[in-house]
Amino acid sequence: MTNTARDITKRTSIGAQRNPASEDAILTAAAEILTEGGLSAFSIEAVARRAKAGKPTIYRWWPSKAALLLDVYHRQKGETFYPDTGATRGDLIAFLEALLGFWKTSGGEVFRSIVAEAQSDPAALEALRDYAVTRCRASGVILERGVARGEIRGTLDIPLIMELFSSFCWQRLLTGRLDPSRDQITHLVDAVLTGFATERGGAQ
Amino acid sequence: MTNTARDITKRTSIGAQRNPASEDAILTAAAEILTEGGLSAFSIEAVARRAKAGKPTIYRWWPSKAALLLDVYHRQKGETFYPDTGATRGDLIAFLEALLGFWKTSGGEVFRSIVAEAQSDPAALEALRDYAVTRCRASGVILERGVARGEIRGTLDIPLIMELFSSFCWQRLLTGRLDPSRDQITHLVDAVLTGFATERGGAQ
Repeated sequence: MTNTARDITKRTSIGAQRNPASEDAILTAAAEILTEGGLSAFSIEAVARRAKAGKPTIYRWWPSKAALLLDVYHRQKGETFYPDTGATRGDLIAFLEALLGFWKTSGGEVFRSIVAEAQSDPAALEALRDYAVTRCRASGVILERGVARGEIRGTLDIPLIMELFSSFCWQRLLTGRLDPSRDQITHLVDAVLTGFATERGGAQ
Repeated sequence: MTNTARDITKRTSIGAQRNPASEDAILTAAAEILTEGGLSAFSIEAVARRAKAGKPTIYRWWPSKAALLLDVYHRQKGETFYPDTGATRGDLIAFLEALLGFWKTSGGEVFRSIVAEAQSDPAALEALRDYAVTRCRASGVILERGVARGEIRGTLDIPLIMELFSSFCWQRLLTGRLDPSRDQITHLVDAVLTGFATERGGAQ
């Protein structure tokens, strides 16, 4: 256990504004349930019991089980996805390898289950959509650094282009093919970064 | 009804080699069930009954419900996804618009359900993986035409690049955002076709 989730007494909500200590206790309890019992053990009820929090509090902060699961999932991902290698090419390769690599762990199982649930549960779909949009914006830091360095054109719709890269990883995860080679990833990044059209096909 | 599925007598399998008439009757029956009753009505049992075919025959040709559903889905898609507009840029834009557009119909619901099922059913995952790999190769005709025209570099890993485009559509479908504007689609195609690196960033 990394914090005091089990020691705290029953918390009361302070409204839609999250209380950081309660939020942390709930997320920690949720992560422990996931680690110990897997996806099948994960429910708002189980999290409430373990965090000594009220279900209404949890639902006020996370409108669906999928939203809470996504927060737990995101915490487990950590912050190593956008390393600054000094060049956009290296940053993009590192991002793809980090995401595909993370999905080879239990993180991939969790994310697959959320995507699956979102196809029949509107609340899960909303949580997934918000998460996807937020992540595409966040990962845009890779291309923003490139623009600042003068490596990337300033006119680019950065979240849209980052969506292309994350989508590739999604399809790989969802079809059980998390095994592109380093050469394939490098080829992909090089192809789109410098374009694959000839001069005749529109390249400058 | 477009064929004689209801008129035929009970068929017998001729082994793993499919009998075209039986195959057609089964696919037609499956499509009718899907159209009339939706996904919840779709089962191998219901298809066998309607096609007057044996369940073992169906399972010999389609190892899972997902495999049969994918075949029905693919038939409904038709053949309008790779029009030859005379230029790769136009072909790619047309492909993305056709796929996203098709997914706004009931075809999108069917495909989402298959992706969801594949996350918990290994047979469905195998069918989806085979389908995804096959479609990325087939859609490669867009870039192959480009290579033949001298528009696209001949050294490109074509199925890998087509995977990038289809993945973008997958993520849009699975997050309920089938609404990119024409401008966004055009921007995406232009960005990767001609590259978004500056000269300093590696572009020639």
